[in-house]
This record gives sequence, structure tokens and C-alpha cells, in this order.
Amino acid sequence: MTQIEEAKKGNITPEMEETSRIENIDIQKILSGVAKGRIVIPKNVNRSIKPCAIGEGLTTKINANIGSSSEIEDLDYELEKALTAVKYGAHAIMDLSTGDNLNKIRKEILKNIDVPIGTVPIYEAAVNAKNKNKTVIDITEEDMFKIIENQAKEGVDFMTVHCGITKNTVDKLINSNRIMGVVSRGGAFLSAWIKHNDKENPFYKNYDYLLELAYEYDVTLSLGDGLRPGCLSDATDIPQIQELITLGELVKEARAADVQCMVEGPGHVPLDQIAANMKLQKTICDYAPFYVLGPIVTDLAPGYDHITSAIGGTVAAYSGANFLCYVTPAEHLAIPELEDVKEGVIASRIAAQAADVANGISSAWSKEKEMSIARRKFDWEKQFDLAFDSEKPRMRRDVCEMDDDMCSMCGEYCALRLTKDNF
Amino acid sequence: MTQIEEAKKGNITPEMEETSRIENIDIQKILSGVAKGRIVIPKNVNRSIKPCAIGEGLTTKINANIGSSSEIEDLDYELEKALTAVKYGAHAIMDLSTGDNLNKIRKEILKNIDVPIGTVPIYEAAVNAKNKNKTVIDITEEDMFKIIENQAKEGVDFMTVHCGITKNTVDKLINSNRIMGVVSRGGAFLSAWIKHNDKENPFYKNYDYLLELAYEYDVTLSLGDGLRPGCLSDATDIPQIQELITLGELVKEARAADVQCMVEGPGHVPLDQIAANMKLQKTICDYAPFYVLGPIVTDLAPGYDHITSAIGGTVAAYSGANFLCYVTPAEHLAIPELEDVKEGVIASRIAAQAADVANGISSAWSKEKEMSIARRKFDWEKQFDLAFDSEKPRMRRDVCEMDDDMCSMCGEYCALRLTKDNF
Repeated sequence: MTQIEEAKKGNITPEMEETSRIENIDIQKILSGVAKGRIVIPKNVNRSIKPCAIGEGLTTKINANIGSSSEIEDLDYELEKALTAVKYGAHAIMDLSTGDNLNKIRKEILKNIDVPIGTVPIYEAAVNAKNKNKTVIDITEEDMFKIIENQAKEGVDFMTVHCGITKNTVDKLINSNRIMGVVSRGGAFLSAWIKHNDKENPFYKNYDYLLELAYEYDVTLSLGDGLRPGCLSDATDIPQIQELITLGELVKEARAADVQCMVEGPGHVPLDQIAANMKLQKTICDYAPFYVLGPIVTDLAPGYDHITSAIGGTVAAYSGANFLCYVTPAEHLAIPELEDVKEGVIASRIAAQAADVANGISSAWSKEKEMSIARRKFDWEKQFDLAFDSEKPRMRRDVCEMDDDMCSMCGEYCALRLTKDNF
Repeated sequence: MTQIEEAKKGNITPEMEETSRIENIDIQKILSGVAKGRIVIPKNVNRSIKPCAIGEGLTTKINANIGSSSEIEDLDYELEKALTAVKYGAHAIMDLSTGDNLNKIRKEILKNIDVPIGTVPIYEAAVNAKNKNKTVIDITEEDMFKIIENQAKEGVDFMTVHCGITKNTVDKLINSNRIMGVVSRGGAFLSAWIKHNDKENPFYKNYDYLLELAYEYDVTLSLGDGLRPGCLSDATDIPQIQELITLGELVKEARAADVQCMVEGPGHVPLDQIAANMKLQKTICDYAPFYVLGPIVTDLAPGYDHITSAIGGTVAAYSGANFLCYVTPAEHLAIPELEDVKEGVIASRIAAQAADVANGISSAWSKEKEMSIARRKFDWEKQFDLAFDSEKPRMRRDVCEMDDDMCSMCGEYCALRLTKDNF
């Protein structure tokens, strides 16, 4: 039985219990959230991992993408990236490998990483096609579903499936005046496939079968936003919202079939449109957990997109998003290095924490208070312990060799030092 | 005559003309904004610099702090920091030096940097006191004003003066349950001075004289927020707002005396309180330009406070702030290095641009569109040209040695590459 099925029947699973304990939330709220589909607990029946619940009323979770590309493939390095991401606080990992040995990488990640693992199965189909000297438009429907079934058996906890790109949305896309067209890889594969074959999206047409497979292994479906905007000008346009409407319908079907699902969202969005996007997703998709990629709030900072997306991610999570996909400084430029992974995870943790505080989540506030008290007391070790990254601040401080009650920034004119006994 | 005096008389100055040209805004709007005090153009009568207007309807400006501390002093290095900050787009520089040779550093900065230069004159008074084996509580009122007069003569364009800390606010502070007390250095000096001497703040008591000095050299006063919160828990509390009310009164007096002024703001503020803070400042201070320090939206990321403040700064500028003081990765830890200055400036530029786009400023949108078109065309050189930092993305791309129409992130499965001829 899936988590949602159990919850609908009023059965409390160990995963729900664990969530209640971790989040310090009444178990009845967790049960009700999972039953309604407002909370998901991605965990394949074939895997034993610590559960990570995502959704309404819970702390904001973050995902880190790792994975090879057709140009760069190194199994050990990808595994190291995943371990680094988890070390710095990623709650889930997506393996987006598209190198020739992607199956091997996925198996190693599933074996060695104890957080929920997600994939985009259409990538494997694309790589298989290429290895037969074909392209994505030649992928058969059978291949698409075989890969999903196989990955589900292996234990993948959540899968991005671009079910919302239909012939209708592809037509709307062709008639739109988007600058960037399609920037989602899965979205591009399926748009090209639909256009070339003049057929309906297999994941949409055979959605019932997809739900059967997901149900069997309790794979959480992450309904992909293949038409997310790829630049600020394209944000919140007709193709994007048309796809969202389709996703809203598919959420209902998934819940009816006792399949857990979440919905993916933009992308590149100007700050003033973020709250509206979150509200729209929540109403259209009946408060399904929302998984956002960024959003990036300016395109003028290649090399710094962990910052542009931390800004968007904070406002998104404050406005309703539940799950933030990290963006690294390498975005738009290159495959991330290990240091990029660390920077990306920390930027996302900042966004999640800032949003959780703004949303009044008490565990988030407790940590802020502890940090302030440690600062007030000049308790540097405690500050480092509480920091998302203890190494960088410790290193900076070690260089200075200062007395405890100052740092080299203000030196003896430290305001705290001057006034600590007065105010 | 000061800019505001000229504007009140309906006289268009060369600085207003230049602003109108740079911002592509009707000169009458600039004239009216300066006359009302909603726009300031910080430029000492003794300096010839390119003007940088700050305020309502204009693009968001950013300031970078440089300066020695009592622990680390290196004139050449501070000058290099200032040049670096300007190179990466800082619109103004504050010299916050507190080392023994602070006068020499300030003179060099004024000589070599062609953007508005700000200072906090009370720092010089504190250093002088120390050099006479005294402390800040021993500073005489005469010294405070002599230093201001001297710096104004030298050409300082804007000065932070903590006029809003009064005996009344110090009492409120003592009775508050703040965790962090006072974290502004100038605020700490004056609070300590007021408390120890049991006298009113000289900058408040003799505000008319301060205005006379500012008027003579057209120094823009930056009314400091000495009681800004130093952690999220302390945000938007009684001492902070009491000081803001006093600043609102002082804004009116400055305008009546034909002195340009802006108001400084927090600090450390949870995301959900930022918009309210901006709105409050605008109404209390009759739409004076608002200069914010951060705000930092979580304290859990020492080493990454350029990110925590870029998040707060974006939302602040979107909600009414006009001038963002950068925060570097060294904040709370050490005096910034050159690389920190660069990172801080770029993070602030991201915040300013994201806010300007969200506020519908057309020059901000034009750059976004140019960047998107360059991306769509795989025109990498154009992308680097438009980027806030061209070096980092260029370097990342050079390492990969890719064909023009892909990068190592997605390789041959690049969505844009796949769909560019289709959509």
C-alpha cells in the first residue's frame, strides 16, 4: 500500500510517525496532510531510507541535482557530489545523469545515499536512443514505460514525468512569442517527440498505466513543468499556465489512484510574479506540494545563479513552495563541480530557512535565537556549530587570530563589545 | 546653493540634467523629486564627480563599504578595494576606516574615486579619542562638529550621522528585551556617550548647526539607524521604531533647511517584515530615499551573508528601498578581502536588478531581454558582456572547450539546441 492509501484509511505508517517526530507536528496533521495529498513522503517500497516529508505546514526541503552529461562522466565524482550535498543538508538528490553509464551511476547513488532519490526517466530513454544511433523522436512508447518500470523496481523514490505537455500545449507554444522556447530537457524531448510524430504525449495518453506503475512501488510522481519559462520575459505566459492546468487535472487522478504526487514549477520569474505563481499552483493543483526550480529573478548574473535563485526560492517558499531545487554557480555554463554543489546546497538552505522563519515555523526561529545568543556571548564555536557551513567562517576567523570579543572587521570598535554590559 | 535649494527654485542643475539623461526620465520629474526631497544627488560642492541620484522612480543604487580597522590597516589595499567595487558597479563608496591613518585613507579615496564618497565622522572622533588614551565617552561636542566640518571641506559627499538616538530612545533600549542590544558602531558610540554623560545626543541637540555645515558644502545627510536590529528576533521593535520616528522629524527639518538627506534602515529582518518596514519608513519619513543595510533574512549563514542580504535587499528595493549597502561574505567574521568586495558588489547588483525588473523599470527589462536573446542565439560573448561579472562565466566556459551550441551541463541534450528550430 502507498503512503496516501494508508493515510486515507487512517493508518499511521512508521514514515508518518517519523515525520511527526522530526517536524514536531501532531501526527493527525501529518495523517490528514498525506491523505489529502498535501504532504508527500517519497519513499519507494523497495528502499529503506529515512523519510523526508514535503508539503503543507512542514519545513521547506531542498533537493540537489547531480549527474553526468554526454560530455563529462565520472561515477566516483558524481557519488562524491551526492555525498557532499547530503553532508551540507540536501534532503533529496536527483540523479540527472545523461552519460552512457547512467544506469551504473543511478545504482550506486541508490545504494550509497540514504535520502530520497529522484530521476527523470526520459533521460535514460534518450541515451538509449542515441546509443542505437537514433534520437529522442524515435523513442517508442514501450521504451518509455519499460524504463519507468525498471527504475521503480530499482528503488527510485520520485520521478519527474512531463505529463502536462500535450498536443494542445505544443500548439500553444508554436503560436507563442517566447524568446527562449523550451528550456526543460525532458520538456524539449517530449515537445519534439509530439511535434515530429504528430501524436499525443504517451505519459499523458497512458497516464493510468503510469499511475499503476507508480502505485506498485509507491513512487512519488513529480509532475514536470516542461514548459517552464527560460527567461524573465517568458514567465507566466499561456503555454506555462496551460500546462499547469493540465497538471492540476492530473493531480486529481493521481490522488484518486492512491499515488503520491507533487508539481514542479518555474523557473525564471520576475520577483513581482512569484507569489502569484505560487498561489495559482496551489489553487489549480489543490494544494499539492510545489517543487520549484529557482526561480531565478534576473538573468544578468551567470556564475552567480545560486544567488539569483536563492532570492527567488526564498520568496517562493514564503509564498507556498514546499521543495526547492538547488541551482549552482555553474548553471547555464557547465556541469557543476564539487564546490558548486556545496555552494548550491548552502544557498538553498538559506532560502529555505529564511522562508521558514518568515512563515513562523518554530524550529526555524529556535535556531535563529540560539545563533543570536551565541553572537551576543562571542561564543564562536557555537556560532560555527549552528552555521550551515562551519568550515568557511572558522577558517576566516582563524586567519585573524583575534581576541574572543572582537573580529578584524570592527576591531576594538566592535559595537557589541562596547555595549554588551550596558544594553 | 544645494541641489534641493536649486530644485525648489525651479533651477535645473547640470547634475539633474545628467541624472535625467542617465536614467532616461523626464527632467521635470527629477526636478520635482529633488525639490521634494524624494531624490538626492550626493555631491559635495568641493568635488567634481559624476552624479549619482538616489530615490523615487530611479534605478536602485548600491554602496560598497571599504576601510581599515584598528587591527588591519593598509592604504593601498583599501584603495584597491574601492577601485574594485567601482569596477564591478558600485555607485557609491563609504570609507569606514577606523585605523590610525584614517585621514590619509579618506583623502586618497576622495582623490582617486569618482563616485560619491560617504563617511561616518564619529569614527574619526573615536580614533582621535583612543589616540589620546581616552574612549568614545570622552569625545567633546566640539570635536564631533569640527570633524564634520573638516570632512565636509575635504569633499565628503554624504555622511552618516546618528541623530536619532536620543536620551529617550536609550531609555527605551535599556528597558527592551533585545538579544543583541546595539550593533551599529556609530550607534554604540553615541548610546554609550549619552548614557555615561547623561546628556542629550549632540547631533540631535545641535541639529541646526549640523544642517548649517551640511548646507554649506551640500553634504547629503544619511540619517543613521543606530538602533537597527542585530538579529531577527530584535527586528521592528520599539527602540528601532522610536528612532525612526525621530528621524522622520529630522527629515522635515533638513528639507526646510535646504539640506539633502536620506534615511538608513535595517539590518536583520525576517522576510515577512521587510515590506512593512519599507512602507513605514516611507510614510514616517515622507518618502525620503531609503538606504538599507542588508537586510539579512537569516543569521545561520556566516560566510554567506552576501547571499542572506541579497535576498533581503531584493525584497527591500522592490518594496521601496532606493539604496542598498552591500554586505560581503566576511560580514560578522573579518575585514573583507578584495574578493569579498567583488562578491558583495555583485550580490548587491543582483538584488538591485531583480528589484528594478520587478518594479517595471524599462532599462532593467531591456538588459534582461538582450541577455535572453543572446542565450537563445548561443552568443556567449554577448552573454559575458551583459553579465555583472564576465570573468567567472568566461573562465568556466573556457575550461570545457565545447561547441558553441552546448555547454557541459546538458551536453548534446541541451533543450535549446534540440528545440531552437522548432519553437
